Amino acid sequence: MQRPKLRRRGDGPFPLSPSMVDHSVTSIDHFGFLEDGTFKQRYLVNNEHWDQKGGPILFYTGNEGDITWFCNNTGFMWDVAEDLGAMLVFAEHRYYGESLPFGQDSYSDTKHLNYLTSEQALADFAVLIRELKRKVLGAQESPVIAIGGSYGGMLSAWLRMKYPNVVVGALAASAPIWQFPDMVPCGDFYKIVTQDFARSGLNCDVNIRRSWKAIDNISATDDGLQWLSGEFSLCSPLKKTDLDGFKAWLQETWVNLAMVDYPYEANFLQPLPRWPIQVVCKHLSFDPSSVSDYQLLGGISEAARVYYNYTGNCPCLNTSSTATGNLGFIGWYYQACTEMVMPLCTDGVQDMFEPQDWNFQAFSDECNSLFGVRPRADWAATVYGGLDIASHSNIIFSNGGLDPWSSGGVTRNISDSVVAIVIPDGAHHLDLRYNNEYDPHTVLSARIQEVEYFKLWITQARKLQIPG
Amino acid sequence: MQRPKLRRRGDGPFPLSPSMVDHSVTSIDHFGFLEDGTFKQRYLVNNEHWDQKGGPILFYTGNEGDITWFCNNTGFMWDVAEDLGAMLVFAEHRYYGESLPFGQDSYSDTKHLNYLTSEQALADFAVLIRELKRKVLGAQESPVIAIGGSYGGMLSAWLRMKYPNVVVGALAASAPIWQFPDMVPCGDFYKIVTQDFARSGLNCDVNIRRSWKAIDNISATDDGLQWLSGEFSLCSPLKKTDLDGFKAWLQETWVNLAMVDYPYEANFLQPLPRWPIQVVCKHLSFDPSSVSDYQLLGGISEAARVYYNYTGNCPCLNTSSTATGNLGFIGWYYQACTEMVMPLCTDGVQDMFEPQDWNFQAFSDECNSLFGVRPRADWAATVYGGLDIASHSNIIFSNGGLDPWSSGGVTRNISDSVVAIVIPDGAHHLDLRYNNEYDPHTVLSARIQEVEYFKLWITQARKLQIPG
Repeated sequence: MQRPKLRRRGDGPFPLSPSMVDHSVTSIDHFGFLEDGTFKQRYLVNNEHWDQKGGPILFYTGNEGDITWFCNNTGFMWDVAEDLGAMLVFAEHRYYGESLPFGQDSYSDTKHLNYLTSEQALADFAVLIRELKRKVLGAQESPVIAIGGSYGGMLSAWLRMKYPNVVVGALAASAPIWQFPDMVPCGDFYKIVTQDFARSGLNCDVNIRRSWKAIDNISATDDGLQWLSGEFSLCSPLKKTDLDGFKAWLQETWVNLAMVDYPYEANFLQPLPRWPIQVVCKHLSFDPSSVSDYQLLGGISEAARVYYNYTGNCPCLNTSSTATGNLGFIGWYYQACTEMVMPLCTDGVQDMFEPQDWNFQAFSDECNSLFGVRPRADWAATVYGGLDIASHSNIIFSNGGLDPWSSGGVTRNISDSVVAIVIPDGAHHLDLRYNNEYDPHTVLSARIQEVEYFKLWITQARKLQIPG
Repeated sequence: MQRPKLRRRGDGPFPLSPSMVDHSVTSIDHFGFLEDGTFKQRYLVNNEHWDQKGGPILFYTGNEGDITWFCNNTGFMWDVAEDLGAMLVFAEHRYYGESLPFGQDSYSDTKHLNYLTSEQALADFAVLIRELKRKVLGAQESPVIAIGGSYGGMLSAWLRMKYPNVVVGALAASAPIWQFPDMVPCGDFYKIVTQDFARSGLNCDVNIRRSWKAIDNISATDDGLQWLSGEFSLCSPLKKTDLDGFKAWLQETWVNLAMVDYPYEANFLQPLPRWPIQVVCKHLSFDPSSVSDYQLLGGISEAARVYYNYTGNCPCLNTSSTATGNLGFIGWYYQACTEMVMPLCTDGVQDMFEPQDWNFQAFSDECNSLFGVRPRADWAATVYGGLDIASHSNIIFSNGGLDPWSSGGVTRNISDSVVAIVIPDGAHHLDLRYNNEYDPHTVLSARIQEVEYFKLWITQARKLQIPG
């Protein structure tokens, strides 16, 4: 059943030609006139298959990281370009990658961070699209479709909601637009992570649930701490004060695995084997009642190594990071501390983690001490519509059943033209990746549907075009 | 045909009870987190006819002035409240009336003016509506309809476009959402003004067209200047350097008359007789070839007096102002100097004014010297959709055929639910005023249609309501 893997194309670094890279000069503040500076926003373009007589533009709304990395991980757009005669554009989100409004000072303080918001980013995209249509010969009448995954998917949906004049439709893949206060239960996210482990191997979730107590037990002595550091090959030996951080690092490891539980070998957050959770769970299949804390944590360390050292090139594990350096963690944390307030919680019963309530006040205090800002819990619901998005049109929300972020996703049709596609055996925006022979049928059919909607929107747009 | 006037209710100052006034505490900057201050936004509420079991809310999106003045001039809402079982809310626009983000410092410099934008105002309205629905018992499920006239009408349309989650529909009366660069010809506005005068009396537009040269001729001498000052009963005698300002004041007088050419005595920009342009034109009906410059300008001065001294209480005419003090001219000028870039031009042939091109650079330079900001000519089209608004829903654009602002209005149906109502013999948002026995049939039928749409939207909203 498990045939040898034959990737259609590499999903490692895409051979990015310098001719693909361009820049747009954009206002630092679209919503005020005191700060009248501009900055260079980077974007990538590919015209290889573009029908220059008004062929569509597929426009990736970049998320919190280097745009080349998203470009490399959005093979879907490359796969469908020829069929659609489409130009591909990947636009970098301000404050990430090379698109820094104040250069190296962009993150220096609250004042410089002030223009890092989703509204500013959407305005950047809208301005860029209008500029492309003005500048590129043949693009004046090109229908533009927004595409994005994760936070980029939220942006693509919101771009269609807020600027329907610039994009005719949006594919929002694994976009948790409802992961905001009072929209979905805060515990669903970790329940899905837990289900992924439960279904991938006998006792897998049970052993992870037991591991937290085992860590407490063993770390109670200095010898135990030393043993833990050795067993996990940690780059820096654990101190008593590191324990919460160590557990948080492990918890995030399991979450990341749930996000990238792809059916083939891939390198998104880390280089990983196919169905990585199944590989992880092989190390955690023992009968929980038959093992000591040491044996249990031995299994946990083997499991973590699947995630951190699949290549075998990693001399030690570093608990200060869990994923690719292409993501902008500080920027994203600032966004979470301002607009992107996404409550998550655990109860240790329906999920395999230590119970933790959602504590807005504590979070707000942390944000204040880190960035000098306080999150506005209710703003996202006000500005982006919350559950009430039925009056919009031409948006596909695709979600993977394995993806914890589907907890905040739109997984039911809202109307004829705001539709949901669920990919039961898909992880985080699997549909945006290159076709692969290991792809489950559900993702292949999702991609076919998505392209059908694209064609429908393009046809609609051509009919609607204002003469002159 | 012209029966004596019997106003149904006074359209002078509405007896505003103090219990109608309330305030909401709102972020000064909705789009950034550095400025975390709040301010008190004023709004007026009337519950007299409200069906407390989810009856609708008619929400006036305040424009550039004191909200009590708009409240007094929007009798339509008071007229239809009972039929709809509606709560009435009139929300004041930030930086106008008493809703000053920085109190008396709000206009002190560019820094303090920075939050005077339409986007911030829309966000204020959205936040206020959500707050009302949370706080007012029985309003949780109340469908909200945005209503506004002129700039307030633009805001009501844009509120529906940008926040369809908070308002189920919008009546945008006399809202020139297309009076932006490259959307409509810049000369249409003054053409309509001219047509209003041409149709209101023999030779009326011709004599006004000739008056500019007559002013030049007479003002060439000091005696002439003195004569002019006396003839117009000016509060301050004219100097040679005041001539451009004097002409601009007269030009604005004719424009204002075109805006408020109502079929009955009213006091909007000034207290005026019914069909004031007809009254004005009685002073300008002479054969242009038979009068001297002095006679011509004598007629012009009589005509101007109709506008400035209908009450007979005005001892002298003040060329530094043309209308009610309830409008916030500096604020509006700042808005014109930033986002609200509305090209207007004259050619002296199709209109009765001295030819003047639209000169963006000169305008931008003036804005820079006045406020230290430069207008962004393309921004309104980007953020508010320009001509491409077909994907929105539930918006009525009503326009009066006499109203010069209809030049930038939506006067054709865009779709089944973005519709235009034209009132051929209506001036500036006549439909928003109290019913009056002198109302032409066209405005009565417009109001009936508007209420029918309201009822349709309310029914739709109740069907769509998300359970729980």
